[in-house]
Amino acid sequence: MTFRDLDLVVRNARVATASDTFDSDIGIRDGRIVQLGLGLPPGRQEIDAAGRYVTPGGVDAHCHLDQPMEPPVRMADDFGSGTRAAACGGTTTVIPFAAQQKGQSLRAAVQDYHQRAEGRAHVDHAFHLIVSDPTEEVLKHELPQLIAEGYTSFKIYMTYDDLKLDDGQILDVLSVAREQGAMAMIHAENADCIEWLTKRLEASGRTAPRFHAHSRPMLVEREATHRAIALSELVDVPIMIVHVSGREAVEQIRWARAHGLSVFAETCPQYLFLTAEDLGIDDSYQGARCVCSPPPRNRENQQVIWNGLSDGLFTIFSSDHAPFRYDAPEGKKPGGEEVAFRHIPNGIPGIETRLPLLFSHGVLDGRITINKFVELTSTNPAKAYGLHPRKGTIAVGADADLVVWGTTPRAIRNADLHHDVDYTPYEGIEVKAWPALTLARGEVVWDGERFHPRAGRGEFLRRGEPTLLPSRRPA
Amino acid sequence: MTFRDLDLVVRNARVATASDTFDSDIGIRDGRIVQLGLGLPPGRQEIDAAGRYVTPGGVDAHCHLDQPMEPPVRMADDFGSGTRAAACGGTTTVIPFAAQQKGQSLRAAVQDYHQRAEGRAHVDHAFHLIVSDPTEEVLKHELPQLIAEGYTSFKIYMTYDDLKLDDGQILDVLSVAREQGAMAMIHAENADCIEWLTKRLEASGRTAPRFHAHSRPMLVEREATHRAIALSELVDVPIMIVHVSGREAVEQIRWARAHGLSVFAETCPQYLFLTAEDLGIDDSYQGARCVCSPPPRNRENQQVIWNGLSDGLFTIFSSDHAPFRYDAPEGKKPGGEEVAFRHIPNGIPGIETRLPLLFSHGVLDGRITINKFVELTSTNPAKAYGLHPRKGTIAVGADADLVVWGTTPRAIRNADLHHDVDYTPYEGIEVKAWPALTLARGEVVWDGERFHPRAGRGEFLRRGEPTLLPSRRPA
Amino acid sequence: MTFRDLDLVVRNARVATASDTFDSDIGIRDGRIVQLGLGLPPGRQEIDAAGRYVTPGGVDAHCHLDQPMEPPVRMADDFGSGTRAAACGGTTTVIPFAAQQKGQSLRAAVQDYHQRAEGRAHVDHAFHLIVSDPTEEVLKHELPQLIAEGYTSFKIYMTYDDLKLDDGQILDVLSVAREQGAMAMIHAENADCIEWLTKRLEASGRTAPRFHAHSRPMLVEREATHRAIALSELVDVPIMIVHVSGREAVEQIRWARAHGLSVFAETCPQYLFLTAEDLGIDDSYQGARCVCSPPPRNRENQQVIWNGLSDGLFTIFSSDHAPFRYDAPEGKKPGGEEVAFRHIPNGIPGIETRLPLLFSHGVLDGRITINKFVELTSTNPAKAYGLHPRKGTIAVGADADLVVWGTTPRAIRNADLHHDVDYTPYEGIEVKAWPALTLARGEVVWDGERFHPRAGRGEFLRRGEPTLLPSRRPA
Amino acid sequence: MTFRDLDLVVRNARVATASDTFDSDIGIRDGRIVQLGLGLPPGRQEIDAAGRYVTPGGVDAHCHLDQPMEPPVRMADDFGSGTRAAACGGTTTVIPFAAQQKGQSLRAAVQDYHQRAEGRAHVDHAFHLIVSDPTEEVLKHELPQLIAEGYTSFKIYMTYDDLKLDDGQILDVLSVAREQGAMAMIHAENADCIEWLTKRLEASGRTAPRFHAHSRPMLVEREATHRAIALSELVDVPIMIVHVSGREAVEQIRWARAHGLSVFAETCPQYLFLTAEDLGIDDSYQGARCVCSPPPRNRENQQVIWNGLSDGLFTIFSSDHAPFRYDAPEGKKPGGEEVAFRHIPNGIPGIETRLPLLFSHGVLDGRITINKFVELTSTNPAKAYGLHPRKGTIAVGADADLVVWGTTPRAIRNADLHHDVDYTPYEGIEVKAWPALTLARGEVVWDGERFHPRAGRGEFLRRGEPTLLPSRRPA
Repeated sequence: MTFRDLDLVVRNARVATASDTFDSDIGIRDGRIVQLGLGLPPGRQEIDAAGRYVTPGGVDAHCHLDQPMEPPVRMADDFGSGTRAAACGGTTTVIPFAAQQKGQSLRAAVQDYHQRAEGRAHVDHAFHLIVSDPTEEVLKHELPQLIAEGYTSFKIYMTYDDLKLDDGQILDVLSVAREQGAMAMIHAENADCIEWLTKRLEASGRTAPRFHAHSRPMLVEREATHRAIALSELVDVPIMIVHVSGREAVEQIRWARAHGLSVFAETCPQYLFLTAEDLGIDDSYQGARCVCSPPPRNRENQQVIWNGLSDGLFTIFSSDHAPFRYDAPEGKKPGGEEVAFRHIPNGIPGIETRLPLLFSHGVLDGRITINKFVELTSTNPAKAYGLHPRKGTIAVGADADLVVWGTTPRAIRNADLHHDVDYTPYEGIEVKAWPALTLARGEVVWDGERFHPRAGRGEFLRRGEPTLLPSRRPA
Repeated sequence: MTFRDLDLVVRNARVATASDTFDSDIGIRDGRIVQLGLGLPPGRQEIDAAGRYVTPGGVDAHCHLDQPMEPPVRMADDFGSGTRAAACGGTTTVIPFAAQQKGQSLRAAVQDYHQRAEGRAHVDHAFHLIVSDPTEEVLKHELPQLIAEGYTSFKIYMTYDDLKLDDGQILDVLSVAREQGAMAMIHAENADCIEWLTKRLEASGRTAPRFHAHSRPMLVEREATHRAIALSELVDVPIMIVHVSGREAVEQIRWARAHGLSVFAETCPQYLFLTAEDLGIDDSYQGARCVCSPPPRNRENQQVIWNGLSDGLFTIFSSDHAPFRYDAPEGKKPGGEEVAFRHIPNGIPGIETRLPLLFSHGVLDGRITINKFVELTSTNPAKAYGLHPRKGTIAVGADADLVVWGTTPRAIRNADLHHDVDYTPYEGIEVKAWPALTLARGEVVWDGERFHPRAGRGEFLRRGEPTLLPSRRPA
Repeated sequence: MTFRDLDLVVRNARVATASDTFDSDIGIRDGRIVQLGLGLPPGRQEIDAAGRYVTPGGVDAHCHLDQPMEPPVRMADDFGSGTRAAACGGTTTVIPFAAQQKGQSLRAAVQDYHQRAEGRAHVDHAFHLIVSDPTEEVLKHELPQLIAEGYTSFKIYMTYDDLKLDDGQILDVLSVAREQGAMAMIHAENADCIEWLTKRLEASGRTAPRFHAHSRPMLVEREATHRAIALSELVDVPIMIVHVSGREAVEQIRWARAHGLSVFAETCPQYLFLTAEDLGIDDSYQGARCVCSPPPRNRENQQVIWNGLSDGLFTIFSSDHAPFRYDAPEGKKPGGEEVAFRHIPNGIPGIETRLPLLFSHGVLDGRITINKFVELTSTNPAKAYGLHPRKGTIAVGADADLVVWGTTPRAIRNADLHHDVDYTPYEGIEVKAWPALTLARGEVVWDGERFHPRAGRGEFLRRGEPTLLPSRRPA
Repeated sequence: MTFRDLDLVVRNARVATASDTFDSDIGIRDGRIVQLGLGLPPGRQEIDAAGRYVTPGGVDAHCHLDQPMEPPVRMADDFGSGTRAAACGGTTTVIPFAAQQKGQSLRAAVQDYHQRAEGRAHVDHAFHLIVSDPTEEVLKHELPQLIAEGYTSFKIYMTYDDLKLDDGQILDVLSVAREQGAMAMIHAENADCIEWLTKRLEASGRTAPRFHAHSRPMLVEREATHRAIALSELVDVPIMIVHVSGREAVEQIRWARAHGLSVFAETCPQYLFLTAEDLGIDDSYQGARCVCSPPPRNRENQQVIWNGLSDGLFTIFSSDHAPFRYDAPEGKKPGGEEVAFRHIPNGIPGIETRLPLLFSHGVLDGRITINKFVELTSTNPAKAYGLHPRKGTIAVGADADLVVWGTTPRAIRNADLHHDVDYTPYEGIEVKAWPALTLARGEVVWDGERFHPRAGRGEFLRRGEPTLLPSRRPA
């Protein structure tokens, strides 16, 4: 090998990592970054990045693609359209969920999910597990084995009837996380409170989408967050609280940190750019588009989330992309027409808009540094879920997953997006930047105008242990 | 230029930055890192780092060298011995203090300090200012000009009669920090409380060194920390609380962060490795060696500091090297014999031991990741004080300030150290690692056994704005 | 009526109420206080209280008497022996629990409990309800009716398999409390955590009594406390957290208060005078005597409880008297011999020692004022549970339930006590005061040496609404 | 003596104390309550209170009367008009301030103040001291002697140039409080911050009254509150933080309590009924009427204060009556015309309206119980300042200071008030209750329509130690 053998050189990049910003060419061979320096020898291909920020490709550590749902509901994006949208928005690694159904083995869920991914993905991907039925078999054998095979994270739900675990079950699965060195993600909302409020709302005829937010006030999230923290403290294992929506949950997490607990937290664009008013301000049913859980809160809480992104409270910024069409019987109108909020599929799309929104309103508007942007959207997700340093950075040896940023202002329009959803909750929001180029392992998948499809080019990634903290397991 | 023209290649390094760890050669030319990659072409010199961690050279952002003192007291280290010790411990940039005396102009203090540094330093250095007399002239002209000239940080004392500012003066100088984009460091202890306690202790004959700790209980630090936070909040400017010693101050800083304030914090080795008992457990005067302010606390507080290093509470880990000989009339026995604690010069040496202590007990003992180590000891100090990315990282374009780590266990012995102090407070503490090689702008200054002197090779660094946060000043 | 017609005059008393201390005679007629003043005309009986504190008779708002248990376990005290012990310790009102068994109607539980009380009690009494099976019938009819009939409080368990409610059920019963103006008491420990820990302890053979404390660490109580607070916040109804044991739960309650929530708290003697070491410091089984839930903690937590008594955190100081014989097959050795901690009946006796312990170690040792003592042990329990001002104070119109305090020091000895339990957990603890006289509605029931029995003299008390807060219900 | 010899009987009163509410006649002889009971024998005078609440006369523990000011400023109320207004508003004890001027002896200040009171007061009164010049003589002799003579409380200012003490001086005087068992009141605002902000506001021409609030934002109060707490913690002595205005100071006090510190707090009507907008919403100078320090905040902070009154955070509710005429050269327009906010005398009148405002908006509107009302306005001030049980309650032996409440709704009108101030800040506010009768030691001073003057009937009260807490001094 000589240094002349570069497949591709991205030249004069303003490279940003989670810690540094520097000017360099990026020399790529076999899909990996092999050389950094100015004045690299010519590659077989050359990309001029002069004057542009180049960041590691995004790692979307919380998104849902083609996840089996109760019919007639169906997710709008499969691995094809989902990774297409990801790529066009600068995300080159996705980690959707292989969800165990109650009664199903975890292994079967994983196998099914591999079949759904097979040959379709345009970018690399891994699977989180969702453990909904922690039988002896799951706890003793399946889960440890799957972790050993590289499925080193799983999600626990504290709500949703078909997914939720009780506290004893949560302790059991957290114990496996501790023993096996896996990362547990927790959806923290109190199921009983939600059900109790929902019934009361329904009894008084308050079923419009906006009452979804009333059925899940912040204390419902705060309580479950505190409980999740207590359970993780009991087991003595780090956890990741996902999609944190506002002040009350944030305060619990700060409390945990101040007490020396390893409690990580994730937030999402909906808690920066939407409010409960986006679910409707009257009884009209239009707001179903923005129904997700926890629901968006208000402006004051948006500021709390921004502060948390800036000051280190949040470890990860994900999309929680959960794609349901609005105007479709398999989507937000599951009966084919508008329904009470209880029956609206929970979740909103965002896999493509995640990075541009944060880059524009975070970095360019002066709320966070570009290094913090990279950390939140790429490096930390890669570390938290065992993909770093292959993913999540621009460094020698890392995959050549890169975003070259363009800075032409535009408004977000669903017509311009690449998912298979018929709306975006961010319609009309102005952004000042968008990926001008997305490289996935050195291959252009998005050139700023066009998507370059190659179904199946995305590989499945076996993952290692989380590396946010020093390893707690004996070497 | 071609890539063959490398002055030096550090080969097969296990490079660690504040965010990443990767295997790479490091290509150096003209004292700068110009290339990263495996299989770099041969350099004029070669260093084999196979199997070793290579980190950015340490930036010691809080140390005192040859600072004018009230006679007969004199600092034991000047720029020569101080930077020698720094280099031998892996630190390649130091930022000591040009201290204004009351009645003196800031400019005069800076000029005097340049003379003290001139031709002596073995590693690069910058000067923090100490503002002890914020006259109109200082506030309106001198301080803004000096900041513009690259002295982009200054320290404020809330205690010590010859240095302390009152709250109104602090507001005035913080306003300058805000307007000019400088970083203000604050020594937070309540002067009146200390004096009041000291007099009471003296009145009852309690003058042995251990009563130094009694004269500065943690609430004295907590109060001043809260006050400093309030003053910075009023002015709306970030601050750096230096040498935080334990729980009560930490809680105030966490409170500030939770309220969205940009309050940064520094801690030091003495708060991890010493306790108040090191000031003596009886009335013997031996404990003068460990007299520093704030005083070391207890084991529980050491754990609080470790947690804060791990979880992001602390931004910087400095030495607060303040070198006074123990057995010398110009040192800890200023009258030539042992004295009441009030008269013991405050401060302890630590410039050489800072990195090995944290690398061993932090990284190798599994308390923090190596990336966190780099962040705390090098990257963040460089960012906080406007030296990044030239200093503080291993990246294309950065100065080739590097530490190659050896991992032979040893006990710290003052006999092995390179400062001009006749003791180390860390005598006998075991470390598992020590720099096997320190490179300062590509030049070997320490080879693991011998110091390679070249007085004057260290350059004065004009600094830019802090970059821990997005710039708050109009572009 | 003339003022000459006094049945009894307690003369020259140093009267203490929850707010005041003053010297007065107390004129009593028909069991009620009808006159206060010095120099009252002679009564048919006279008691000389010169130089002595006279306080309102204690109201023990948390005690268990003759409560049906799973055979062979049986409570050692019925209404006879329980109220005998109460009276001898200065308590003239008790509120034990009519406990619903799952499947049983609340009404049946109440009727059964009336039969148990009938003709046996020596002092007045009321019943709290325990709601363990909140069926529609219970929620819609039984509970509202019973509240209307004067059973204006009920207890909710978050642990114990046969009693615990899930969060949804708790919300349902709290809603009834809100609508009907009743007070809900909550036993806050997380059942799943306890079961999970218990199984782990058992699996490793750690079954000695001291592991009872290991199975219920403070976080188990903290979590449930936070959850109880959240549930009460959701329903917008005051609650009483009973038997709070230490710092972590206290912090949650302080948090709730600071957020404007009406969260009241009770503590008990075991959290002031016992520690987990009283459950044994080795694997011997002697510690079963002190097994109760939550378990006693440590000295630091005792101090936290003392602070909370002094500063208003706690509203009520109760005994949580739960009488099980130690050396008996129906008691702490349910199989007739010592058993694993899971099988030890939970609870300890304390109905007689409650007031002397707090009077001595609280009032006489200078930790709380005598007014605070009265508030915690008598006035507030009476207010919280709808008995004030008939009970809980020395005022015109109140029942003549009085304690004249003697101040002869003594050590607590079970041989001197009047319950039917074969031990006291406070054996050997010194007290400086003991009731020299207890009057129940003007009748001497304890004269400092002898108990004056009259089974059936204690009346059942129909209660009104809680009066700790202004009424929230429309007048 | 026989019970027929009653001077006065208040018959069928609905008596409320800080702990109890009961129906009773109140038998009075020689200005004291000698008997309680229904059906008391006839007195020489009889008052029918059937159906009316009777509470202890108010103790206004924070008011300023005829306090020497810098000419031309002069207080509008002297002991004559001030106690007249007090009496008409139900207050029967006042504690204004004997203020030491710098250079003056404390004794001289006290003597001067006695001359001002002599022969003028209509109700009983005591003097707090204000220590502004804590010389050795003051600390060693004057202050201890005056405390021994019954001046058992003093106030410390952290702001105002002519009054403020530095931290060392505060520690000195707090030490005297600790040694002598006195209560220290603290006005907590950071003087330097206020001066710094004031200069900035003045420099930009912002001198209208509303900028008074801008010159004293809540952090200025929060900082000083934290500092005062720290100083009292260092000395280990209880303190009373006076006139707490809102959330940030409240949080500090809650923090102190949670850490076991004896920090008491007072608030005032202006923080419940006024906001910063009452200082003006534009640059007009009308708002001078409501200039006081700390300034009123906003609605949210009013709610925080209400919560603190209800939940025990606040110990005392005082008026901080500081009477300056608005339209007068010796008042709010010190130059005879409107002036910049810096020159407006600080303080507002409120001695007469304090009780009706809290009774109406607190008790009758259901925010606090009537017992809490009595505690805050009468019992606790009497205890905190060594007047209890002579003052502050309705009990045998207490002074017959009583308020019989009328409940005719009315709007507050300055025309109806009895101070010598030309406005009330509460003009137009509706109240639902007003004293129908005020008795001062058994003598009618206000009958609901007319004031019954008798200058000099008010006695000076020598006070004992505070009794809020158990005595800390050896008996």
